[in-house]
Amino acid sequence: MTRLRITVVSFCLLLELFSLPGAMAQPYKGFQNNLMPAPAVIRVEEGGFQITSNNMTLSVPESASPLLLRAIGRTVQRIEDKTGLEISREIKHDASGTLQVVVHSNGSAVQSLDEDESYHLTTTPTLIRVEAQTPTGALRGLETLYQLIQPTGSAFSVPSVMIEDQPRFRWRGLMIDCGRHFEPVEVLKRNLDAMAAVKLNVFHWHLTEDQGFRIESKEFPKLTGEGSDGNFYTQEDAREIVRYARDRGIRVVPEFEMPGHSAAWLFAYPELASGTNPTGIRREFGVSDFAMDPTREETYQFIEKFLKEMTTIFPDSYVHIGGDEAPAPDWKKNPRILAFMKSHDLADNDALQAYFNRHVLAILTKLNRRMVGWDEIFNPALPKDVVIQSWRGEASLAKAATQGYQGVLSAPYYLDGMKSAETHYLADPIPADTSLTTDQQKLILGGEICMWGEQLDERTIDSRIWPRTAAIAERFWSSQNHRDIDDMYRRLEPMSIELQTLGSRHLSSEDTHLRDLIGSDDIDALRTVASAFEPVSFGERYQQQHTSQLTPLTSFVDAVRPDPPIRHQLEVATREFLGSSPEIRATAPSRQVLDNFFSDVGHAIPKVQQQVSDAPRLQPLEQRLHQLTELVQVAQQSIQYLTQGSASPADWKDSSLEKIEAARKPSAIVRFDFLDALSGLVKATH
Amino acid sequence: MTRLRITVVSFCLLLELFSLPGAMAQPYKGFQNNLMPAPAVIRVEEGGFQITSNNMTLSVPESASPLLLRAIGRTVQRIEDKTGLEISREIKHDASGTLQVVVHSNGSAVQSLDEDESYHLTTTPTLIRVEAQTPTGALRGLETLYQLIQPTGSAFSVPSVMIEDQPRFRWRGLMIDCGRHFEPVEVLKRNLDAMAAVKLNVFHWHLTEDQGFRIESKEFPKLTGEGSDGNFYTQEDAREIVRYARDRGIRVVPEFEMPGHSAAWLFAYPELASGTNPTGIRREFGVSDFAMDPTREETYQFIEKFLKEMTTIFPDSYVHIGGDEAPAPDWKKNPRILAFMKSHDLADNDALQAYFNRHVLAILTKLNRRMVGWDEIFNPALPKDVVIQSWRGEASLAKAATQGYQGVLSAPYYLDGMKSAETHYLADPIPADTSLTTDQQKLILGGEICMWGEQLDERTIDSRIWPRTAAIAERFWSSQNHRDIDDMYRRLEPMSIELQTLGSRHLSSEDTHLRDLIGSDDIDALRTVASAFEPVSFGERYQQQHTSQLTPLTSFVDAVRPDPPIRHQLEVATREFLGSSPEIRATAPSRQVLDNFFSDVGHAIPKVQQQVSDAPRLQPLEQRLHQLTELVQVAQQSIQYLTQGSASPADWKDSSLEKIEAARKPSAIVRFDFLDALSGLVKATH
Repeated sequence: MTRLRITVVSFCLLLELFSLPGAMAQPYKGFQNNLMPAPAVIRVEEGGFQITSNNMTLSVPESASPLLLRAIGRTVQRIEDKTGLEISREIKHDASGTLQVVVHSNGSAVQSLDEDESYHLTTTPTLIRVEAQTPTGALRGLETLYQLIQPTGSAFSVPSVMIEDQPRFRWRGLMIDCGRHFEPVEVLKRNLDAMAAVKLNVFHWHLTEDQGFRIESKEFPKLTGEGSDGNFYTQEDAREIVRYARDRGIRVVPEFEMPGHSAAWLFAYPELASGTNPTGIRREFGVSDFAMDPTREETYQFIEKFLKEMTTIFPDSYVHIGGDEAPAPDWKKNPRILAFMKSHDLADNDALQAYFNRHVLAILTKLNRRMVGWDEIFNPALPKDVVIQSWRGEASLAKAATQGYQGVLSAPYYLDGMKSAETHYLADPIPADTSLTTDQQKLILGGEICMWGEQLDERTIDSRIWPRTAAIAERFWSSQNHRDIDDMYRRLEPMSIELQTLGSRHLSSEDTHLRDLIGSDDIDALRTVASAFEPVSFGERYQQQHTSQLTPLTSFVDAVRPDPPIRHQLEVATREFLGSSPEIRATAPSRQVLDNFFSDVGHAIPKVQQQVSDAPRLQPLEQRLHQLTELVQVAQQSIQYLTQGSASPADWKDSSLEKIEAARKPSAIVRFDFLDALSGLVKATH
Repeated sequence: MTRLRITVVSFCLLLELFSLPGAMAQPYKGFQNNLMPAPAVIRVEEGGFQITSNNMTLSVPESASPLLLRAIGRTVQRIEDKTGLEISREIKHDASGTLQVVVHSNGSAVQSLDEDESYHLTTTPTLIRVEAQTPTGALRGLETLYQLIQPTGSAFSVPSVMIEDQPRFRWRGLMIDCGRHFEPVEVLKRNLDAMAAVKLNVFHWHLTEDQGFRIESKEFPKLTGEGSDGNFYTQEDAREIVRYARDRGIRVVPEFEMPGHSAAWLFAYPELASGTNPTGIRREFGVSDFAMDPTREETYQFIEKFLKEMTTIFPDSYVHIGGDEAPAPDWKKNPRILAFMKSHDLADNDALQAYFNRHVLAILTKLNRRMVGWDEIFNPALPKDVVIQSWRGEASLAKAATQGYQGVLSAPYYLDGMKSAETHYLADPIPADTSLTTDQQKLILGGEICMWGEQLDERTIDSRIWPRTAAIAERFWSSQNHRDIDDMYRRLEPMSIELQTLGSRHLSSEDTHLRDLIGSDDIDALRTVASAFEPVSFGERYQQQHTSQLTPLTSFVDAVRPDPPIRHQLEVATREFLGSSPEIRATAPSRQVLDNFFSDVGHAIPKVQQQVSDAPRLQPLEQRLHQLTELVQVAQQSIQYLTQGSASPADWKDSSLEKIEAARKPSAIVRFDFLDALSGLVKATH
């Protein structure tokens, strides 16, 4: 994008900014609070700031950092794009601007866990003011400001508000697995933009896997030379990502998996292995037997040299060492390792891995870094300053906290489970009924969303991450009390559009896949039918398809989106429809929603059936289309019975419920997204 | 994308490959020749090669270059994505593979104008064989192979064919203006992929403009430091683009505009100017008065140092020096320049510019480069080895050819004119009725499509370039005899899908903009209405909006696509409908096409009108929607009269034609795409 140039025109120091006289106040009706994540405190007042082509002028203290100026530049450009108006890029250092950004310090070059992210945002009809302790806080405020801009008649306005905001948790992360499938730099950049929009602050970069080593090491060039198929980040790429993330208030925590999940390391440097060496990059998924040899001094020399090099790229205080899923059968077979364990009084593999972790921790400490690892690193032999990332559940996290370890919750936030935004949203890192003490609760640093890469590539990753991640980001930022699912989904729609405007392709990728699947742009019917489906979970897909790294990811399941908006809309409509008295059901808006969906889908099926016959990759869908035809009929019948208040024919209900149950069975690696709603309708008939 | 690794398993030299016994032949019915560009010779036979999960195996000579192996890797991956099948990446060096690629030389590191791009492609039910003199020829053949793969029932097949192919013109270019708006590296990469798919072979990279200097110079860092808003290509970026293009058989010809269009140079280095210095990067478009000073020796020292540096990045034999639109009023005012002209016997600005060009040519010659420039450099004072790129018309190109200059035609291929693919397609670099002799015709090297950047950015560029460029690419590659417009449009649809599958966003960007415009995913109605519009030409838009580099490009005009497929479909339907006897019109398929379009649009208007009232950026469309409502009515009435054979009411025809004419007047920076079809219908009534 162009036009980021900022011209500085005045040099008087700005210590305090005051509200200014300006354009006349305009009443601001119809404001919808779409903010996501919800701020801690918001007070909305009458009127607002109506944006015109010349009433938005910028004031920023002379001491403002380049990072802050870039952030303001990006925000102004987004406001221009949203409103269609040109806004002057001149920055004043006095209090004459109508958009004032005041920051009391320039923050630290390296963002810390304890970064102050709080901000105040006040808007009147003549002034917009963002105030924060750090540029990072100002970034959060600018994102909120952008979300507040809404059309009011023929113009765009910001409502008069007073917002005080800060995050509930310090660690609000998204992990992207770039090991199993490589994700190009631009994919990561657009995801960092999206993360910033929802105020996430940790990009956990999963850089090494059995299936690929993705970060260039100049010390050990074979790591990517042998272990990456040529798909890796140069050190310059990685530095650019770190810089790009810092500009958006996001820390980058790199992960280098050890001692397991290390086939790519070991293929490149077999001398690290415990006995069995991989004969190539591992293409299959699942836990592997390959493991580093924790008994050899050379292993630690290698790791130290490697991690030292990595600290020149990744300035964050934390380094993630993986540590999960290392069954390491070699450790139980290799006589040398067995002898070592005996002589070092290490009872079993767990003890040996703890020994390994202590040694790696010592290296990290020497490098001025702290250690993060998955659940499995949790071992009383480790000191208390490691962070446990819990993928095995809340209980495991709580257990670590009771023993004084810091933790980050991930178990309920696995996006490849293809669960609903609702399910993720309701999972809390510290549930209201937690048994942890206040001090123990402080050890829960926050949560991290995990996007594992087995079954996605650059063409599908956005729709797997967004918009569901926005709902989880609210869980990490906002008060525990926000648990209104309908309101969350209401706000998720404009959030989803904002994310696509920022560059995410979670909405457009479905059509792209559908066109590709039928080799034509004539996708209206297919799009309608696709809205009835969502992808199955990682596990179900793995079972049905046994995907490997080599599986082409261009099936119908790759086109459809998890938790498409219609799923929740149909459930709300069903609830409302069933909640209406039978007399008004015929004309209820909820009936219209149900009718429209099932009739649109019903009409689209014949055309899709025809297209499927010429599209080999769609042919597994034939049984699903047959089921869909039946289910649409069941839905239309139920609505009819429920509207007329008439009883259904004998056996109809049972046979309908059977059809629904049959439709829940695995087929074509996709599942229907409306079965709960439909089942509710059928069950309500009599 | 992953999985490009190639494993070499056999080392015996492959000199000659023969057809092999293999799977049984399957009849191959329903093959559609969708090839674009059309090959020189194609013979289609019965049957074909049916692709299964294990019958495609690769044979390539041991001597094959890494470039060729990468190209094969990409092709195999695209075939996997298209078929959903995993294909082994093992490469054999004997004749046992069923996909055999034979290349007789490894070509040159730097692709030349005279590169041999010919290839033979033969397919039988058991063998696919691509043979070429150079890897570049093999690349062309692999693209043809990919296009031949079509679904046949439940599988994908390649029909049995014998193809002999080579290009008609040696220079088949696409120019992208990255000066007026910057285009990120990934945008260029996806356009290079698309160029390769349609066998274009020159990427003309317009790198400098009044509005921005986009290529890093280490000799003169202020060029981008002052002249780019921070939006430029590092030298590493540029080398990556050159490498990426070479891998796809595409030369990169860089353009450095001089002596005019140089405000960004002169803002950075005012000492180069002829008198008037820019006070910043120029934001306005149009011809500017700034020009380099051709009279100072220092100017040439600067240019030599700069171009010498650039030759380390751009290995192509040709360098484009721009040379257009340099009115340079300073040259007529600056006493020193006037004195110089007098003393050097230079009569006017043209003579001074020719003097300048001769000096730059001498520099380029010293650097072992040849010169390309726009029309204006054509001057008998220049030697015959410069290449004239004609933007002022075919006559200008022909004139240069008659005087012995080589030329490339661009005038009819300006994409920002928003003309139809048809119009571009019919324009020939050497028309059938040319008055040039055979020898003069040889001086016409080919053609170049121009994508100027005033009114586009990275979000819209794809839909401006594609798919129209595919039609022009055929003009440059294929025989002059291909002039069947309906067949061109028939093939353009699958081509368009292929391009989007490769990564171009020309199809998805419309929806992205529409969602953004209404802030909602509820775009079905808006999409339908949008299909009735296309963008106006550059000139019309400039007149209506007076765009500058700072204009946000997020209006409705930025959403809609030039020459959307429905335009030609409606014209064909109108022609067929009017060609049918009135008795069968009622049930004619062409009537169905017309009815569907106008009734869908008609139904969508009310919802869009409602959405427009809440979307400030769409409000300029209100008058257009009112017109559209009237035009839909006119269309439906005409169809009715023409079907029933009844006369229209008095004055109806005149008033309808008046409505059509009124609808042609400028409004909302868009135009209707169906007016010619509609006008045909109305005129046919009686």
